Amino acid sequence: MRPASPFISDVPAAQAVAAWQHACAADGCPERVGTVRVPVGEAVGRVTAEPVWARRSSPAFDSAAMDGIAVLAASTTRATETTPLLLAVGEFEVVDTGDPLPSGYDAVVMREHVHRTADGLAELRAAVPPYQHVRSIGEDISATELLLPEGHRLRPVDAAACAAAGAVELVVRRRPLVMIVPTGDEIRPIGTEPAPGEILDTNSLMLAAQAREIGCEAQVTDIVADDPDLITAALREAAVAADLVILVAGSSAGRDDYTARVVAAAGTLAVHGVAVRPGHPVVLGTVAPATGAQATPVLGAPGYPVSAALTFDIFAAPMLAALEGVAPLERPSTSARLARKLASTIGADDWVRVRLGRVGGGPGNGIVATPLPRGAGVLTSLVRADGLLVVPAGLEGHHAGEEVRVELLRGLGEIGRTIVAIGSHDLVLDVAASALRAADPLVTLASSNVGSLGGLVALRDGLCHLAGSHLLDPATGEYTLPYVDRLLAGADIAVIRLVHRDQGLLVAPGNPAGITGIDDLVRPEVRYVNRQRGAGTRVLLDHELSRRGLDPAQVSGYTREEHTHLAVAAAVAAGRADAGMGILAAARAFGLDFVPVAREPYDLVLRSELVDDELLAPLWALLARADFRAGVEMLGGYSCQETGRRVR
Amino acid sequence: MRPASPFISDVPAAQAVAAWQHACAADGCPERVGTVRVPVGEAVGRVTAEPVWARRSSPAFDSAAMDGIAVLAASTTRATETTPLLLAVGEFEVVDTGDPLPSGYDAVVMREHVHRTADGLAELRAAVPPYQHVRSIGEDISATELLLPEGHRLRPVDAAACAAAGAVELVVRRRPLVMIVPTGDEIRPIGTEPAPGEILDTNSLMLAAQAREIGCEAQVTDIVADDPDLITAALREAAVAADLVILVAGSSAGRDDYTARVVAAAGTLAVHGVAVRPGHPVVLGTVAPATGAQATPVLGAPGYPVSAALTFDIFAAPMLAALEGVAPLERPSTSARLARKLASTIGADDWVRVRLGRVGGGPGNGIVATPLPRGAGVLTSLVRADGLLVVPAGLEGHHAGEEVRVELLRGLGEIGRTIVAIGSHDLVLDVAASALRAADPLVTLASSNVGSLGGLVALRDGLCHLAGSHLLDPATGEYTLPYVDRLLAGADIAVIRLVHRDQGLLVAPGNPAGITGIDDLVRPEVRYVNRQRGAGTRVLLDHELSRRGLDPAQVSGYTREEHTHLAVAAAVAAGRADAGMGILAAARAFGLDFVPVAREPYDLVLRSELVDDELLAPLWALLARADFRAGVEMLGGYSCQETGRRVR
Repeated sequence: MRPASPFISDVPAAQAVAAWQHACAADGCPERVGTVRVPVGEAVGRVTAEPVWARRSSPAFDSAAMDGIAVLAASTTRATETTPLLLAVGEFEVVDTGDPLPSGYDAVVMREHVHRTADGLAELRAAVPPYQHVRSIGEDISATELLLPEGHRLRPVDAAACAAAGAVELVVRRRPLVMIVPTGDEIRPIGTEPAPGEILDTNSLMLAAQAREIGCEAQVTDIVADDPDLITAALREAAVAADLVILVAGSSAGRDDYTARVVAAAGTLAVHGVAVRPGHPVVLGTVAPATGAQATPVLGAPGYPVSAALTFDIFAAPMLAALEGVAPLERPSTSARLARKLASTIGADDWVRVRLGRVGGGPGNGIVATPLPRGAGVLTSLVRADGLLVVPAGLEGHHAGEEVRVELLRGLGEIGRTIVAIGSHDLVLDVAASALRAADPLVTLASSNVGSLGGLVALRDGLCHLAGSHLLDPATGEYTLPYVDRLLAGADIAVIRLVHRDQGLLVAPGNPAGITGIDDLVRPEVRYVNRQRGAGTRVLLDHELSRRGLDPAQVSGYTREEHTHLAVAAAVAAGRADAGMGILAAARAFGLDFVPVAREPYDLVLRSELVDDELLAPLWALLARADFRAGVEMLGGYSCQETGRRVR
Repeated sequence: MRPASPFISDVPAAQAVAAWQHACAADGCPERVGTVRVPVGEAVGRVTAEPVWARRSSPAFDSAAMDGIAVLAASTTRATETTPLLLAVGEFEVVDTGDPLPSGYDAVVMREHVHRTADGLAELRAAVPPYQHVRSIGEDISATELLLPEGHRLRPVDAAACAAAGAVELVVRRRPLVMIVPTGDEIRPIGTEPAPGEILDTNSLMLAAQAREIGCEAQVTDIVADDPDLITAALREAAVAADLVILVAGSSAGRDDYTARVVAAAGTLAVHGVAVRPGHPVVLGTVAPATGAQATPVLGAPGYPVSAALTFDIFAAPMLAALEGVAPLERPSTSARLARKLASTIGADDWVRVRLGRVGGGPGNGIVATPLPRGAGVLTSLVRADGLLVVPAGLEGHHAGEEVRVELLRGLGEIGRTIVAIGSHDLVLDVAASALRAADPLVTLASSNVGSLGGLVALRDGLCHLAGSHLLDPATGEYTLPYVDRLLAGADIAVIRLVHRDQGLLVAPGNPAGITGIDDLVRPEVRYVNRQRGAGTRVLLDHELSRRGLDPAQVSGYTREEHTHLAVAAAVAAGRADAGMGILAAARAFGLDFVPVAREPYDLVLRSELVDDELLAPLWALLARADFRAGVEMLGGYSCQETGRRVR
């Protein structure tokens, strides 16, 4: 076995960027991409490659700024309220807004202030100062003034102003070309059906889209096998036309990770490994298509999708902005209160994806940030994220409730209209989320799964609007309400029934272990997969064991915890367990068999004052809809008989 | 004369939107655009038309989460630090991150924790819990879970997650098609040379680009003459394919304004005139291609460019987002301190363009907002704007220093790196702004023209970093420093020389009035155009008159004020005046002759503590550059002999 990560360093991100820039300069990479001349109408989104000076004034002539009549100011000095002045035809001219000021006139009187007599005269009751309501030549743009500097990304108003100033074409930067080279024996193109052990090439799709999103062109090459000679050849070929080559995967130090070695051999390896999590095993360097040819920057991106996406943001995007000669795009940010303690490794910037919700007052504008799963492989953590929280290398993390700064991935207005549900998760919440959005694109229902008990605690701590709960109280046989009394004593709490649902044992197709109910779980050869502490499903198991006088210690795998119904189903489907408790929908998701155990109510717990809040009105309206209820019951394992009923 | 604006109402914007939506619904306009099926890689930027449920789990198999060896956890229970366990070949398997977990194993030991003996055995010094460093099937995505709701605009990570979950194609909304119909006898296509009185069709270019910027398709028709029948025909034709028709100009109530009448006759006129400035004379309605055909929403946009641009933002963008079934894009906002009093008309939302700069502490994060020119025709006010400040209809305005909320048009980071110059304007500042940006895209120099005295007052009030000044003190003959002593007494102030420049009289080409100097300005037939009070150029004129014993009252046009050198030049060029004082560059801009009067120093005034601030370092470096000085002197009328010298 080779030594651990022999080549991977932990260079701080800023230092890595500097080292990469230094290598690019030393190897003669171009500082900027070239220029092209484009029609002004096609220049929007491009970056000016030279300053734009006005060639013409706009407006190009004096014009009426109001509808009315053009007059010579000097001819009106005698007009007063008591001695109106009558102008004859030829002493004034009718003009509309924008009309050129007729020759011989120097002011405009608004239509509202003119009385036209029956014989066509114009009566004025006040003298008019010169240039009144005249829009002067050059009011907007004066010839020769600087309209835009070099290095400005053109917006629609910029292009219109350039055209008004006489520009027909503009000299802009060519769009930087990003060539993406996917590598890996196990990588298969999207559209194929991957065999076990194979992975779809979703990273190339994502990186190309990220490049296009910031105004670049992007091309993806064929997938290259894990062979250093093939990778070298592909890299050199990509470097011919590209302004930046991104080599995907193989950037770590495993047996088939060739990126660093290939870059070092074919060009300059500036950095291998940065103090950023996720994204640590990144490669930064340059490579030339051939000896003596001009070098091209190369980024070796890690294969884990979150690492790949963040690596693009942190390293590729600023490099591409510099090549285009423009400031990188900035994300707006907000302050937020952290929903729970967040530990972070000292020594690396930690990019934490968070959900945001506006759930109350207090610091951070009432915005609460809940960290999402932090694995580099959990792309859905980026999909679901409303923001990114960077814990800098020098910090061990943040404590719960601490005010933090979050880069926004969604607008604050949209976040303010988001219903935040934390607690037990149920598929019906997903169905509701999609139906709400379909009815009104401004409504979002975001649910995070921490189990029923965790949801009630989150509600107590002001971190969510709704807590989804199906907690059985073994003493009373009642669901949820006894826990509300205990955990939320003193608070004015409402409980709305979402649905009744069947809980049961998920078993492999055909039920090979012959499991017929809870009693079979203590059979020594049966491997169970449990839910985490605080999950209603685990409480249900404990209750069922207890009323049979069975000891949890007899259940093999009782300590093996998963956090969702679907994760339990996945464990059974993968053969890691013979049975686990969950809902019918989870069994169906993985093609498992289902042994019913109980029918339980699943409720939404919230503060009473929120029941009539406009935020939640669309949800209550949805729960009342017959088509929604019918759709839920069609899923199987659900009853909507009490859906929407306030049980407290 | 017809009564004033007979048809134009002042409906509040929200009410106008509601009336438009109501008309669209009543006339059977589609609520959403249709759907199309696109490959997942081409779906980025599109809006989901149905929820995306995961078809496959990702990862699709259990895999190693670390480089190391796969083991069976149960076989390692005896391993301890003091009694290492030796695993033989066949009892473990070497795996890299991402490799499928080999059959028969259920945990991974990191390479760093394994010692490989010379004969190929693996030595463990600790027991391994089951599933250690195993990435479970479905860790990222579980089959059947909701990945994205309907009505979600797809980002690169979303498309990658959809692909990972088994999507090959996605059902998305068709891009809404916006047809833009320019109207007006005086409108000419971009690329032609407009005759006097003609206007280039920059609005269509801008509106089409605005539509594309928010994800729509846009087409511009030929320009339609001011003829109601032709406009009706063009409108009906555009309505055939369009999801929204924008009719440009003619939306007011002048003689040639047909939009409202045409829409009323050919369809439904829902709103004519909204309580929004600029943008008041807007038309909202629907029109059908033919009787009985499906109706299409129509927006009649005013012809003034700022009105047209804001009308798109306020009315078209939300309509198009609704048609695509997605929340409208949101601009981030910031709080800022208002640089000066801002008056606003009661009864209309006032959309004020502002420049933003971070110039100090205090409320609003040290960000100061300076209102830009407010005319509906001043498109450069939008080009130069960093933000939009809406003064609601119910407010008379804001007082100076008040904290206001501003929608951001540029990133706050970029704004924080902007050097804010307020005061007298000089072309050299423009040249410097462009050179600074060319050298470093992160640096912005933003200058606003309020005259020298206004600049010193702004500096005193903490509204800018630099004040450009060329104020002559008639008593001492000294420039700027005496004013600094008076206005900024007690403050620690530095003064840096930017340039020496020639001031003179701008006269028509060939100098038809035969003006040879200041003395000629009192000739009765000579019409002068002056600068505003507080402008250094006006002080210079006053001084030159005074030392000749001439009375300003003798100068015809002394009270006619313009605010910039270029505006003075424009007035002379348009024949509204025979002479005005200004710099050589302004004369050249308008092809005027120049009669020299004086050479004066133009200085940059700032607080001493800022001299060594990193914000200004690029500016000082630029002033020291020989190529910059040479370029300035090439402009004519400038000397750089003292450029960069600290005169206080």
